[in-house]
Amino acid sequence: MPPFDVPEGDPFGVHNLPYGVFSTAEAPAERRVGVRLGDHVLDAGAAALALDSPYAALLAQPTLNPLLAAGRTAWSDVRRALTAWVTVPSHREVVEPLFHPLSSVTLHLPFEVADYVDFYASENHARNVGQIFRPDAADSLTPNWKHLPIGYHGRSGTVVVSGTDVVRPSGQRKAPTDPAPVFGPSVRLDIEAEVGFVVGVPSPLGTPVPLGDFREHVFGLCLLNDWSARDIQAWEYVPLGPFLGKSFATSVSAWITPLEALEDARVAPPERTHPLLPYLDDSADEPGGYDLRISVAINGHVVSEPPFSTMYWTAAQQLAHMTVNGASLRTGDLYGSGTVSGPEERQRGSLLELTWNGRDPLELPDGKRTFLEDGDVVTLSAWAPGPGGARVGLGEVTGRVVAG
Amino acid sequence: MPPFDVPEGDPFGVHNLPYGVFSTAEAPAERRVGVRLGDHVLDAGAAALALDSPYAALLAQPTLNPLLAAGRTAWSDVRRALTAWVTVPSHREVVEPLFHPLSSVTLHLPFEVADYVDFYASENHARNVGQIFRPDAADSLTPNWKHLPIGYHGRSGTVVVSGTDVVRPSGQRKAPTDPAPVFGPSVRLDIEAEVGFVVGVPSPLGTPVPLGDFREHVFGLCLLNDWSARDIQAWEYVPLGPFLGKSFATSVSAWITPLEALEDARVAPPERTHPLLPYLDDSADEPGGYDLRISVAINGHVVSEPPFSTMYWTAAQQLAHMTVNGASLRTGDLYGSGTVSGPEERQRGSLLELTWNGRDPLELPDGKRTFLEDGDVVTLSAWAPGPGGARVGLGEVTGRVVAG
Repeated sequence: MPPFDVPEGDPFGVHNLPYGVFSTAEAPAERRVGVRLGDHVLDAGAAALALDSPYAALLAQPTLNPLLAAGRTAWSDVRRALTAWVTVPSHREVVEPLFHPLSSVTLHLPFEVADYVDFYASENHARNVGQIFRPDAADSLTPNWKHLPIGYHGRSGTVVVSGTDVVRPSGQRKAPTDPAPVFGPSVRLDIEAEVGFVVGVPSPLGTPVPLGDFREHVFGLCLLNDWSARDIQAWEYVPLGPFLGKSFATSVSAWITPLEALEDARVAPPERTHPLLPYLDDSADEPGGYDLRISVAINGHVVSEPPFSTMYWTAAQQLAHMTVNGASLRTGDLYGSGTVSGPEERQRGSLLELTWNGRDPLELPDGKRTFLEDGDVVTLSAWAPGPGGARVGLGEVTGRVVAG
Repeated sequence: MPPFDVPEGDPFGVHNLPYGVFSTAEAPAERRVGVRLGDHVLDAGAAALALDSPYAALLAQPTLNPLLAAGRTAWSDVRRALTAWVTVPSHREVVEPLFHPLSSVTLHLPFEVADYVDFYASENHARNVGQIFRPDAADSLTPNWKHLPIGYHGRSGTVVVSGTDVVRPSGQRKAPTDPAPVFGPSVRLDIEAEVGFVVGVPSPLGTPVPLGDFREHVFGLCLLNDWSARDIQAWEYVPLGPFLGKSFATSVSAWITPLEALEDARVAPPERTHPLLPYLDDSADEPGGYDLRISVAINGHVVSEPPFSTMYWTAAQQLAHMTVNGASLRTGDLYGSGTVSGPEERQRGSLLELTWNGRDPLELPDGKRTFLEDGDVVTLSAWAPGPGGARVGLGEVTGRVVAG
């Protein structure tokens, strides 16, 4: 009998327990912290109250922010308590009525996003982009690429939850041969398959966060689609970087997977080809990579399977870099890994790369694609190795392109 | 008898009435909305409550956010009420005890910053930077500069109120002749004298804000110092723009001047040399510029007087551009004008320009300066033409550089 009886091997079994925020049709304005188990959602705050748990203060909330801010010891304690609530038979009578079928609830952006940063940490992606846009350059990477994880700030106010429609942005574009820029809907709307990391514990202004403190600050991760209008971006981005080409929408999963659920997915990052400055040198640290197997589908058709394990820069290095100048962290800071692209053609995380800037269209069951068309539904999904051969599912991130 | 008897000609007279947030020594944890009059601060929430005003819900608050969100009609109504409270003799007995000497209170960041965007809207500044960094280029402006207001997102979590010390950031830098990057405290720490615009009324995702709606959304402005580590910035910024070279601190005034106080300061922007796309074409609109006379001082010594009236792109154009892709606005969004530099040498808004990248040191009473030294106190101040020849003072923004 579900949900206690989640089928063995379910990627959302008790070894996973990701967190989200939901509301029900009966009380659409009441947001509650939910924990996913199989195809059900546990009302975690209601369970904490019913079981007289001290964690009700963290879970009976409309966002994950209080839990995020509570810190690593609390994260472990809450996870242990939740595991007991959904597995110990004596809790069953109390807890079971607090589950809702996933299909019956509305999922919301699970935390208040503070600052949003996006990185550029896949060597394959950076080299592909370099070859496409600077075919004559001696090196497809910029000179700084192997010395620091390049990043920039994005718009946190337009981070939206999976399922939100994405309105095709309008803006200026200018081909090199155009005499002047023209205005209109983007004709090169793209995706970027990424992983997003969610900061829980803040840090004070003026104090860098060292590499080894990554798991004291970062609560968990999710999938992230950094929608990109390549034509708008190309015209605007010199010299201050991407702006309107990115700021119209960034989609994230409704479920945040705690890092604790991903212990079995930890892997060493690729070998570093350049010596690193001490604040980025993780050669003596525990493995900083995560083996996440991502899948990118357009209208249900898988077009790419980017392997996150190939990322050159780790999330811990990105956090250390982002704060090395003394910048503070806040609860709810979100940072994206950058587009995940593996070495193979079918492992590229953007249409820019998959179609080589439109030169080689993809053949989909419903026709050719260079960039996205109105009506296209893009879905990122992923899993990671879990305990005893189980899979840990990440919450999918999906979005439909609609005309402006 | 102050504060009703503010001296005539005081730049913080009743024609100004900027808003801030303060606490007192007696109740340091209680933040209150304050309105500045001369060298006093009115506890605006307490006044509203004492006078049984309907605006208590907007003013008896710990931040300006509820007032910001209330919209243009409410902004006018509240301003009219406040003017009456501090001028109508019958209110004097109630209101006068609610003033605090400015010197006795602690001023706080007056609103919760949502997204922070920084523009690059001074032609003089952009040309100076182009000549310094690309001396051989045919045009000192990038090809897009006259077609759109270039901008990028900054770190909203490190926006600090005037008076906050600025810790010298450390980071990577690499001179072209260095074989590899080195790490250490920035040796080219700079200022950028800017004006910040504060968004009050949000806009929905997917809906651009047209030029003419600027004053429906933007509540007011303040001075802003976009501290910049030029050496960190130079090494990191290709291809995704400034990141750690800026994200360690951005200082803003403690006082937000409502746009309504600046009606007499409105001026036409410089003549546009290139045709503009319709969404940016303000040629038929009311004047979009503001005549703000800025002053930059280091350790009390004025080094520059940048005129804001010379900015090529207006705040209304920046807002229209920032949202033309459908990006939404939130209450508390902040956007900086970009460094304000006039055509004269003594009108440049950064040390990069004032010293021509360190080639021509400034002679200060306490020695030469190329970039900032530890202990230096930088103060931006400004005034604008007000009604009947009065001056409207902007709240200063000051900060001291301390070693990391």
